[in-house]
Amino acid sequence: MLRHYKIELPAFGRGFHLITDLILNQIPDLPATGVLQIFIQHTSAGISINEAADPDVRHDFQLYFKHLAPENLPGIIHTEEGPDDMPAHVLAALMGSSVQIPIIMGRLALGRWQGIFLGEFRDARRKRTVIITIIE
Amino acid sequence: MLRHYKIELPAFGRGFHLITDLILNQIPDLPATGVLQIFIQHTSAGISINEAADPDVRHDFQLYFKHLAPENLPGIIHTEEGPDDMPAHVLAALMGSSVQIPIIMGRLALGRWQGIFLGEFRDARRKRTVIITIIE
Amino acid sequence: MLRHYKIELPAFGRGFHLITDLILNQIPDLPATGVLQIFIQHTSAGISINEAADPDVRHDFQLYFKHLAPENLPGIIHTEEGPDDMPAHVLAALMGSSVQIPIIMGRLALGRWQGIFLGEFRDARRKRTVIITIIE
Repeated sequence: MLRHYKIELPAFGRGFHLITDLILNQIPDLPATGVLQIFIQHTSAGISINEAADPDVRHDFQLYFKHLAPENLPGIIHTEEGPDDMPAHVLAALMGSSVQIPIIMGRLALGRWQGIFLGEFRDARRKRTVIITIIE
Repeated sequence: MLRHYKIELPAFGRGFHLITDLILNQIPDLPATGVLQIFIQHTSAGISINEAADPDVRHDFQLYFKHLAPENLPGIIHTEEGPDDMPAHVLAALMGSSVQIPIIMGRLALGRWQGIFLGEFRDARRKRTVIITIIE
Repeated sequence: MLRHYKIELPAFGRGFHLITDLILNQIPDLPATGVLQIFIQHTSAGISINEAADPDVRHDFQLYFKHLAPENLPGIIHTEEGPDDMPAHVLAALMGSSVQIPIIMGRLALGRWQGIFLGEFRDARRKRTVIITIIE
């Protein structure tokens, strides 16, 4: 059995945003056993699982993202939408467009420190759409 | 219900290649509701979802890939197959070997700008094999 | 049908560790057709599929990981657990927390050179927990 739920995330602006509860609050109770998939329908934002306890981690991620995908890399030509556009596509490719999480005993089987994150790589605040799929 | 289809992609050569239609043309009609997974059976190529509208994005990705995984990094020893080999393994690990896409109303639920890409990280033109899995 | 198996991996220490057999030896026979998912419950380690034949590849990955996520990047503040902590979170985000592999004719449909790897990004040796999910 497989069901989809389309969810709109609020317009966060650039950052690494914890969205675990925001996702769970918008879907029905989880089945006892299954897999939850989150798929993001955008090319300049990604979905990831990472450290949810210390907000400093989210701060530091921004610095590593700039190290990984610097703006104005010599030779790039896709720049009409601004210097944050092409790095956003690169970071979306690195982070990935979906995560898959086991559901055990009616709960997401996340580790002690894990949370679900939206990686928003554009400066502008935009609403983002994700599709939640539950396979049971 | 779960079915697999083994597909051979043409020998593209190094680049970030849009393969959405190429995949869809080689499998039967999609079910009304489900998930489509694409898994690549290679260690120097990856599968990704990214910006499909502007070919400039694919050009710029090549520059970012060289920034992320430069050839001849000091100290590396896996070089017998050429300087493009080890960076290709690294980029395959970063991009990932599979994507999972929701199927809604008989269509891939891709966002407006999303397409499916083969990341081919070796210079030589090689045919690449992917396994399409449909879960419904 | 969908089943989960919780597995504890041995404490490897930092490195890129081949775990294909270690996983397969701890679960029952695979079904004829399906998908095997491996999900890691940690935020400083990742799961990947890569080149399993030449151990030199694993050596070189360590150098590329340092290039991608250097220690002591100027400005970072999440450093109480040591300089290897924040780079580990970044590499976990880049590598991803799960892989999905088709099962065909009762075997993992890995390509000729592919194996399953644990990316352990912390120096300290820690046991790591993964959840294996089989969808059939």
